[in-house]
Amino acid sequence: MSTAAPAQSTLARERDRVSQCLRESVIPFWMNHSLDRELGGYFNCLDRDGSVYDTKKHIWLQGRQVWMLSKLHNADPSAKDAGAFRDAATLGADFLRNRARDGQRVFFSLTREGKPHFLQRKMFSECFYVMAMAEYARATGDASARAEADELFQSILRYAKDPSLLGRPVYDNGLPATGELAVPMILLNLIEELNGADGNDFEDIAQWCVERIKLHVRHDLKMVMETVPLDGSLLDTPEGRLLNPGHAIEAGWFLMSYARKRGLADLEKMALAMIDWSFETGWDKEEGGIYYFLDRGGYSPLQLEWSMKLWWPHCEAMIAFLMAYDTTGEAAYFEKYLQVADYSFAHFDDPQHGEWFGYLDRHGRVSQRFKGGPYKGCFHVPRALWMCEGLLGGLIAKAS
Amino acid sequence: MSTAAPAQSTLARERDRVSQCLRESVIPFWMNHSLDRELGGYFNCLDRDGSVYDTKKHIWLQGRQVWMLSKLHNADPSAKDAGAFRDAATLGADFLRNRARDGQRVFFSLTREGKPHFLQRKMFSECFYVMAMAEYARATGDASARAEADELFQSILRYAKDPSLLGRPVYDNGLPATGELAVPMILLNLIEELNGADGNDFEDIAQWCVERIKLHVRHDLKMVMETVPLDGSLLDTPEGRLLNPGHAIEAGWFLMSYARKRGLADLEKMALAMIDWSFETGWDKEEGGIYYFLDRGGYSPLQLEWSMKLWWPHCEAMIAFLMAYDTTGEAAYFEKYLQVADYSFAHFDDPQHGEWFGYLDRHGRVSQRFKGGPYKGCFHVPRALWMCEGLLGGLIAKAS
Repeated sequence: MSTAAPAQSTLARERDRVSQCLRESVIPFWMNHSLDRELGGYFNCLDRDGSVYDTKKHIWLQGRQVWMLSKLHNADPSAKDAGAFRDAATLGADFLRNRARDGQRVFFSLTREGKPHFLQRKMFSECFYVMAMAEYARATGDASARAEADELFQSILRYAKDPSLLGRPVYDNGLPATGELAVPMILLNLIEELNGADGNDFEDIAQWCVERIKLHVRHDLKMVMETVPLDGSLLDTPEGRLLNPGHAIEAGWFLMSYARKRGLADLEKMALAMIDWSFETGWDKEEGGIYYFLDRGGYSPLQLEWSMKLWWPHCEAMIAFLMAYDTTGEAAYFEKYLQVADYSFAHFDDPQHGEWFGYLDRHGRVSQRFKGGPYKGCFHVPRALWMCEGLLGGLIAKAS
Repeated sequence: MSTAAPAQSTLARERDRVSQCLRESVIPFWMNHSLDRELGGYFNCLDRDGSVYDTKKHIWLQGRQVWMLSKLHNADPSAKDAGAFRDAATLGADFLRNRARDGQRVFFSLTREGKPHFLQRKMFSECFYVMAMAEYARATGDASARAEADELFQSILRYAKDPSLLGRPVYDNGLPATGELAVPMILLNLIEELNGADGNDFEDIAQWCVERIKLHVRHDLKMVMETVPLDGSLLDTPEGRLLNPGHAIEAGWFLMSYARKRGLADLEKMALAMIDWSFETGWDKEEGGIYYFLDRGGYSPLQLEWSMKLWWPHCEAMIAFLMAYDTTGEAAYFEKYLQVADYSFAHFDDPQHGEWFGYLDRHGRVSQRFKGGPYKGCFHVPRALWMCEGLLGGLIAKAS
């Protein structure tokens, strides 16, 4: 049974839904509540109503907000809000550049004033710093921001190839060396961000990323592993059996975007498979929503929060399914987009105070009422709504 | 309204319940499934039915199991199982002594063979190693195990006073230096373990612990804070507002045990207050069970698992309320013991395969089916049942 293509009215209704949420609820929430005009940067720990419950500044979110605001500016520099977006991006970019770096490392969190609070033994603060600077340079023409992105990106490549540089001891204990999906997927996304709409640099690194991602994509099991031995085998441990469906779906659309631009049909097919399998495995058939973690062997994941429904896997799935529909024209992908979007607007969206809730229990009840925290800020929701708005606009134009 | 003292028949019924669970379900589970007779140490990652789902060996649990088995031996060295307990303790103690130390540090986890897997920037592996060696030395008369406990305890004291020795950078960022409840409470418990039934050493350190614990006990708020500035103030951040009721109840009975032995009535009163307040705040009045984390200001805790019901706070509360009843003779404490024990036997106990489940969702449904994992092993359940068996036996003897 084939599914009929969505009517123009359906596409328009969806575009209105995401556009309205983005522009009347989500962006105003962050513009009204997060800007620290006194000391710079953004308050990213915001309660349901936008009040600040912690003044610490988490660099993942500072960098991602600079990126998002710059992107909104750059999408239409003549729009009436564009200047406000650029100014708000400057507030964060200046704070990052003055405070967040520790040589070739970037802190995980700072005090409100910008003094060091915590440094992770991971490279993701650095990644979001680079992502911020690359897009901010486009918003302002600030070449030194771009130069900083390029310089720090080289350090990130060193960390990716030798994680011991980040200070976590690596033991020679007879276990195979392993790789995390997060590393090649974020690098591939960073390359896309550094390249912008039409650049074509870093192709050798992109190909390294693609080869690494392929190790995680197990056609034999129809699953995408989070952690794999680099020798192509599988680990039968909780880490080696771990599935993170939202993460795999996000990696899928990163890869689809990369493959589409280059006309790589085989890679596009692999990206679609990653999304298909992960949604099939990850969707909770009883209660709805996408699980946070699963174990491929059916054991209980060690992560206590495994059955919770988090906002960001749903954001990534909305992007992935619309992109898959745009790529293939298969209406079933639009149906899946609707399935995820309907769940999300019914459960995460908070029309009363703006933005989305981030954390639901398995049954879809709000577990954490805050809108921003150490891992949630002005990023996944606005990125997804903004990308879906663009994809839906393109579909409407194509169909008319 | 005063509550009537429990009848002898009630005390006997309770003693039978905990004793039967300990000796017919919990101990057999670990003795049958955890011993790695081939390569030494214990499998501590055990599924519901005792099958091994990960062969890694987590040192917190290796040490705690050596302690528990030695304790069971030492409680009655002429009992028919005593030899088996001592032999099983030796299996773990030898593995620890051959494999787990890295100079004055102790690994967090090892491979099955005992090769290094992970080293935490925390001092708790060292603490459980010391606890194991102190009791194991009593079980075997092995003076070198005791000497090792004493030596490593001195390193732990250095780590407690200067956590930067553990490798986590400490920043001079204008925030007040803070203390964690875990540190003085585990040190106080270690001193009790090193002292044994009638020792009286380390009194200066014990008094340092008591003074530190007092900083966490806020009579003005009737709450016990997890993290406090050392200057006696309060932090208005998620860390500074965090409550962990089970942890505070455990600290309460550690302190009550310390105070009782020394006849310190004021400290005993403070310990009872810690238990009373934390149970009042921590018990979920709608769904039953003790919350894992709360925020004193009513915000959502950052910990995604805050509303889950974990086995160990219930174990600690069973001990604390029986000890409080034994100390004060107030029947209301026995009622609270029953409230927690009834919840626990109804929700955590697994008569089908033995031992208790560890992790329930807010509504009391099993969330993780495994019996052992990186933080759950042969410790909280048998320690609680064994201590409750002893306390109930004492109450029965007193009343007859």
